[in-house]
Amino acid sequence: MKYRRKLSGYFLPTLKEDPREADIVSHRLMVRAGLIRKISSGIYELLPAGWRVVRKIEKIIREEMDSIGAQEMMMSALQPRGLWEESGRWNEYGPELFRLKDRKKRDFCLGPTHEEVITKLAASEISSYKELPFTLYQFQMKFRDEIRPRFGVMRAREFYMKDAYSFDYSMDGCRKSYENHVDAYKNIFKRCGLDFAMVEAATGSIGGKYSHEFMVTADNGEDEIALCSCGFGANSELAPYRIREEKTDSSVKQKRLEKVKTPRMRTVEEVSGYLSLGSEIFIKTLVYDTEKGPVVALIKGDDELNENFLKEAAGVSELKMADEETIQELTGGPPGFSGPLGVNPEYIFADRDVLRMENGVSGANEKDAHLLNINYPRDYKVNWKGPLRKVKTGDLCQSCGGVLELKRGIEVGHTFLLGKKYSSALNAVFTDEKGISREMIMGCYGIGVTRIAAAAIEQHHDKDGIVWPPAIAPFDVVLIQLGKKTSDICKEMYKELGEKYDVLWDDRDETPGVKFKDALLVGIPVHIIIGKKYLSDKKLEIQYRNTGEKEFLHKEEIEERLGDILGK
Amino acid sequence: MKYRRKLSGYFLPTLKEDPREADIVSHRLMVRAGLIRKISSGIYELLPAGWRVVRKIEKIIREEMDSIGAQEMMMSALQPRGLWEESGRWNEYGPELFRLKDRKKRDFCLGPTHEEVITKLAASEISSYKELPFTLYQFQMKFRDEIRPRFGVMRAREFYMKDAYSFDYSMDGCRKSYENHVDAYKNIFKRCGLDFAMVEAATGSIGGKYSHEFMVTADNGEDEIALCSCGFGANSELAPYRIREEKTDSSVKQKRLEKVKTPRMRTVEEVSGYLSLGSEIFIKTLVYDTEKGPVVALIKGDDELNENFLKEAAGVSELKMADEETIQELTGGPPGFSGPLGVNPEYIFADRDVLRMENGVSGANEKDAHLLNINYPRDYKVNWKGPLRKVKTGDLCQSCGGVLELKRGIEVGHTFLLGKKYSSALNAVFTDEKGISREMIMGCYGIGVTRIAAAAIEQHHDKDGIVWPPAIAPFDVVLIQLGKKTSDICKEMYKELGEKYDVLWDDRDETPGVKFKDALLVGIPVHIIIGKKYLSDKKLEIQYRNTGEKEFLHKEEIEERLGDILGK
Repeated sequence: MKYRRKLSGYFLPTLKEDPREADIVSHRLMVRAGLIRKISSGIYELLPAGWRVVRKIEKIIREEMDSIGAQEMMMSALQPRGLWEESGRWNEYGPELFRLKDRKKRDFCLGPTHEEVITKLAASEISSYKELPFTLYQFQMKFRDEIRPRFGVMRAREFYMKDAYSFDYSMDGCRKSYENHVDAYKNIFKRCGLDFAMVEAATGSIGGKYSHEFMVTADNGEDEIALCSCGFGANSELAPYRIREEKTDSSVKQKRLEKVKTPRMRTVEEVSGYLSLGSEIFIKTLVYDTEKGPVVALIKGDDELNENFLKEAAGVSELKMADEETIQELTGGPPGFSGPLGVNPEYIFADRDVLRMENGVSGANEKDAHLLNINYPRDYKVNWKGPLRKVKTGDLCQSCGGVLELKRGIEVGHTFLLGKKYSSALNAVFTDEKGISREMIMGCYGIGVTRIAAAAIEQHHDKDGIVWPPAIAPFDVVLIQLGKKTSDICKEMYKELGEKYDVLWDDRDETPGVKFKDALLVGIPVHIIIGKKYLSDKKLEIQYRNTGEKEFLHKEEIEERLGDILGK
Repeated sequence: MKYRRKLSGYFLPTLKEDPREADIVSHRLMVRAGLIRKISSGIYELLPAGWRVVRKIEKIIREEMDSIGAQEMMMSALQPRGLWEESGRWNEYGPELFRLKDRKKRDFCLGPTHEEVITKLAASEISSYKELPFTLYQFQMKFRDEIRPRFGVMRAREFYMKDAYSFDYSMDGCRKSYENHVDAYKNIFKRCGLDFAMVEAATGSIGGKYSHEFMVTADNGEDEIALCSCGFGANSELAPYRIREEKTDSSVKQKRLEKVKTPRMRTVEEVSGYLSLGSEIFIKTLVYDTEKGPVVALIKGDDELNENFLKEAAGVSELKMADEETIQELTGGPPGFSGPLGVNPEYIFADRDVLRMENGVSGANEKDAHLLNINYPRDYKVNWKGPLRKVKTGDLCQSCGGVLELKRGIEVGHTFLLGKKYSSALNAVFTDEKGISREMIMGCYGIGVTRIAAAAIEQHHDKDGIVWPPAIAPFDVVLIQLGKKTSDICKEMYKELGEKYDVLWDDRDETPGVKFKDALLVGIPVHIIIGKKYLSDKKLEIQYRNTGEKEFLHKEEIEERLGDILGK
């Protein structure tokens, strides 16, 4: 894919100013560097240089997918309602699904993902165990009517995705297919030049047995992940941890319960401010409704509840905040003034850190009042105790006991071990060696292709612009021509380097300042400046975008140096 | 793009029987050869081998587009209503446009074509003549809610298209861009191995100054084209021609007008059968409504009206069949029994062949009656005479006087010189050297990528299946393994040939008959049969799909032979 262009004729509309509406650095830089433009909220066009980045990422993905034997195909964006009713997702999916009618008033949706289509295909075409296993994949625009599209192509309503689906004979086989994809994904993100982590994740609307996310670490990441040097990683929404066994301070005396007036102060922040007490000695008392009735969760005032832990502890799948009536009935007081005292212990699930708290504070289960000096088990009992709070930096890895680190990440890939969820719904069965009909075991595997481009920028940029990892840069080299007298040597190098590298020749009639700024902004890995220095002593200035270093070389030395830098 | 696969693990669901619903040979063979499957009416998925064909075509198109300096990008499928209102097409486009609402009830359409999006982009980003000319293009799924989707991917509702848009300073520049695209298109279709013709065409809903279609000649083509050996070609809907100047036969006597009863017989076929007279002596009398009032067209009973000619002759842009009331008023008789006699000559437009007719037959302008022995100008007068009928085989080329040949064709490409239609509507202007604001001059250029695959099959198939032109075959070579003892040599060749060619190894546990049939059906150019002949005297049987010829070669001789055949 060697590609040469002169910038004077290339559609690269860079901007001097930051665009309005661009909320994070990757969005801002993609617009400024002339890579994308907005068509409508959450809908973008990829301009030539932006599309080149995406195509380079696509090529890496394709090579790795092909190398694990996956077969590329192309499904349709339009999907008939009937198919989605078979899986049950026509009703489940909600307003994120774009729906439309054709001229005969038949219902369709625009594919946000393709489990239904692919499972139907397998169901129609596969009949024998001999035809298993196989994996099909595609690159395709996906459509999701996000409630709040933002961050440019990062959370768009139409975005470019690679989705793959594996079909296996057995769960063991599926695990093998899953592992193959994990290996391929690791290679892909590595080859794209990204720092990433693979973490355990929730299965969400796709469903299935278990799943992993591939996270590019970046300050602006929407997700929080817990990582250990041992290799363990999990989305903080479900990351387990060991709690440090700290001794309780035996010198602290349990004081006498005391009720204080806290008029109209409902939140931990309000009360702790009013009483001049740290939020870490507050007992946050959260009342939920579940399909099995109400539950009361206790966590420390400076912690966050991990809803997944509470669901598991209570053996429920639905959690929603209880209404006023339920709270009143359960605690005897109004919302905002709840506490464990006087509540039937049967309902109480407590984070262990709460139980170790001395002289704690909570609502008094009456209007405008809190209690001081609450101590467990002196003042209240609980039904269950264990970890309920979200993981925090400093918690210990459950696998190795090492210290967990919390980072922010951008999800660029997600793998799901689906099991039989879709094959069962859409009757994707095969006959085994004994003539018995069995359901295929499936996995599905997605990569956000356009999102990788944005994530790479979040991870690789500086004050001047993008710093592309060389493998996914729109061009390898930019020739910055200064003055008219250098046009012959530029032409020569354009031709020669263009045999091996993607070369952009800035032949515009612009000032050196404009040219340097654009080259930095667009983030091309190698800048070759051809100006007076060449005319006087035949030397070319080479600048490397990632380090900012520069050196002067003769033309003959350049090709070898580029080989080292660009690895080609 | 070298690619190796073992057929035992390849998703290629071939069918022994013709599928129901497949109306033409390409549709039938694409389904049978495991290239496509239907998801819904006019909506298909491209299975791995089918997608490989499309990707090979895509690669050829990309190379040729890049070579004329066009720049690839990616627009969105979702397009906001506002953009289409600016161009006026939101209302014009009709039910072929898929329309939908997002969660906030805003209107969108799914792009059937992208003039609006691209012109808006040019309008926003381009300000100076220095930035012109440029051409942007993309490969993308297009959406058109065809009233009658048919012929598989040939006339589908979601289909893969390459669309390009050129922006120029002047009409001369645009003509140059247009010529560049014409050259690229000719290379593309040639490289795809297709017999094609470039013909003058109508501009339709895209609009513009003029346009050309690129037609793959095939018996099942939906279009009719007129071609001359001098290079002239036009869609028969607008092909001009010279009429042979035949002498009228002076020995024929003009007979006396005669009225005959023709109860309930309205069509030329009915009446000519009833009267035992050839349809060539009937005067077909067609009454239309136009924006300027009614017109009456006369053509010979065995000819077809060219509506474009009539529009031009009458200076109108709309033609629709007149209603009963208009016909009654104009002719004095009911529909089905019209003729020129007694009609105000002001309304009459006559094809010249009608006026030379002797003793003709037409309706009598009264119920259940026709007139015999009508002669011009003895019995009626006309307002206008000239060519009104469609071109026929044997008509003469207007350019060179040679004999025109009529063929059927499949439109695979269409180029439009748009002029200012969209730049004017969407305000795509630039400032010229003198500081004057001018509208950009545009062209647009489409290729139906999936349609090329189907057209190639229409042109290249036999009773056994597809005969792919080598450049777009899903695989170059199939190794047909017979027996288990040949598996080592197969493996060796799979590896060696796979370095240079796309190789499919039929390693399935199937009978030779099944393997031969599948190889023929899928249409892979070269079949290498590895069986007893190899085990006995080390010879391999090579069969060529296009000629059916076979020969026996030693393994060492094969690579050179493949080079000749496949041109690599």
